[in-house]
Amino acid sequence: MNSELTKEIIAEEFRQIQSHICEELEKADGKGVFIKDHWQRKEGGGGLTKVMKNGNIIEKGGVAFSAVHGPAPEKMLKKLKLQGSDFFATGVSIVIHPHSPMVPIIHMNIRYFEMSDGTYWFGGGIDLTPHYVVPEDAAYFHNQLKSTCDQFHPEFYPRFKAWADDYFYLKHRDETRGVGGIFFDRLQASPSLSVTQLFEFVKKVGYLFPKIYRYLMQKNHALPYSEKEEQWQKMRRGRYVEFNLVWDAGTKFGLDSNGRTESILMSMPPMATWEYDHQPPPGSQEAYTLEHLKKGIDWIAETK
Amino acid sequence: MNSELTKEIIAEEFRQIQSHICEELEKADGKGVFIKDHWQRKEGGGGLTKVMKNGNIIEKGGVAFSAVHGPAPEKMLKKLKLQGSDFFATGVSIVIHPHSPMVPIIHMNIRYFEMSDGTYWFGGGIDLTPHYVVPEDAAYFHNQLKSTCDQFHPEFYPRFKAWADDYFYLKHRDETRGVGGIFFDRLQASPSLSVTQLFEFVKKVGYLFPKIYRYLMQKNHALPYSEKEEQWQKMRRGRYVEFNLVWDAGTKFGLDSNGRTESILMSMPPMATWEYDHQPPPGSQEAYTLEHLKKGIDWIAETK
Repeated sequence: MNSELTKEIIAEEFRQIQSHICEELEKADGKGVFIKDHWQRKEGGGGLTKVMKNGNIIEKGGVAFSAVHGPAPEKMLKKLKLQGSDFFATGVSIVIHPHSPMVPIIHMNIRYFEMSDGTYWFGGGIDLTPHYVVPEDAAYFHNQLKSTCDQFHPEFYPRFKAWADDYFYLKHRDETRGVGGIFFDRLQASPSLSVTQLFEFVKKVGYLFPKIYRYLMQKNHALPYSEKEEQWQKMRRGRYVEFNLVWDAGTKFGLDSNGRTESILMSMPPMATWEYDHQPPPGSQEAYTLEHLKKGIDWIAETK
Repeated sequence: MNSELTKEIIAEEFRQIQSHICEELEKADGKGVFIKDHWQRKEGGGGLTKVMKNGNIIEKGGVAFSAVHGPAPEKMLKKLKLQGSDFFATGVSIVIHPHSPMVPIIHMNIRYFEMSDGTYWFGGGIDLTPHYVVPEDAAYFHNQLKSTCDQFHPEFYPRFKAWADDYFYLKHRDETRGVGGIFFDRLQASPSLSVTQLFEFVKKVGYLFPKIYRYLMQKNHALPYSEKEEQWQKMRRGRYVEFNLVWDAGTKFGLDSNGRTESILMSMPPMATWEYDHQPPPGSQEAYTLEHLKKGIDWIAETK
């Protein structure tokens, strides 16, 4: 880490990204407002969780900022394969569940981690979980991510896209959570990319999020749907729960290591359901969606 | 294992217990019927899953029987700290989600495991998850379990009751899943209890289940409730999901080791919801329930 960029500067920028995102989402929703919940961490630091309920378009949304520090717990050192005394971690984390099954669920996270011995890294990602896969929307989403990645390194998009396919994957269903996105972790400065450039990249991902989601909200929220689509949405929300509770490394680690439960589970949906061995009829939109929840689909090429 | 009692006899008895339970539940429900789903396991064996949807009292219920065998997977040997070539496992597993928030969710499982080197054990348990804790119902439930346990060994009930408190526990909420019950695993014959007696005990647990649940259905299904209780029920179902996906060792192992997903997740509820940081009003029935989802409550003594 160079001397100009400090963890305080990063945390402050993340806090501003949270504010910006909440303002943009409130504007796009037109009715819902984010309620603020400040919390302190006994061992050091704290956070500000902002939650929206029953907006026009957003049924349940959470945008969380945190900056925590203190002695590194044993479990953390073991999981991260690190040695050291104190840690610092800051991040912004978002999950939005819309009312309409025609609007996708979205998730975004950016984070910075630092140990007292000087080790540090950035991580993050954005992924999109449509209840119904729409190739043009997936292509728009991936094009936006690719443009942002390409400003920094030609390998970022292909690497982080494949990483997202692997990460957001329900092994017990052989399904991806959605149409993927980008995922990256442990990004450190290299001869070709300074820490300042990495920070710029992570900030751009943060600021890209509301642009993407406003577009997808606007494009899809007025589309008609019926009870059938609502029922399917509830089942897809069930899958979202399965991913988060069974496979998401961050959630598992948080719940197992005495993290703040309400912040970790802010991502849980309203009204999820499970049906025994549900099989959508062949040729249906639901079957089409299942067929496209697979790793390795090049969404940008698909729609060219 | 003595020569008279074979794994085939145990599996056949378990299959009969499944039949008996489904008949009893259909009678008690008065409308719902169990749909049968036979399945085969590629590596050996299979099962019969019976599922009820939208009965009079039961909203979603599954009663699963399976008897599987084959080469023991690496993960199984590691988890069970066993060596050996082939395994055999048979069991009956049940979860019932009622329509009414005034009727508790119930779970029962009995199982038998055997390795080709002769190692074997029984396991199982019953636990009750009321949406609203009712001390008399909890006392009835525990008295029934205690009576059955006491017929076999004076230490069974206290040991298995404490085991259930520890097992059905959501660490990240500091909540038990419900009012507990009994849980036992790796029961083997001892000088004081033959394998035949152990099998008798496990059978009694299986046959006790419908008696208990018919009583609790009958007693509570006609009680009035409103939208407030329904909303609470959906949140409690969310907790049920959290336990099963985050903490239940059987579920985790099954999903991670290529088990049959639909059978494993048969336990998932219909219509579960999550609200950010929900706190029931002090003095409410909901607050009372949360205060009583704790380890170590002696329900039998409580209501004397």
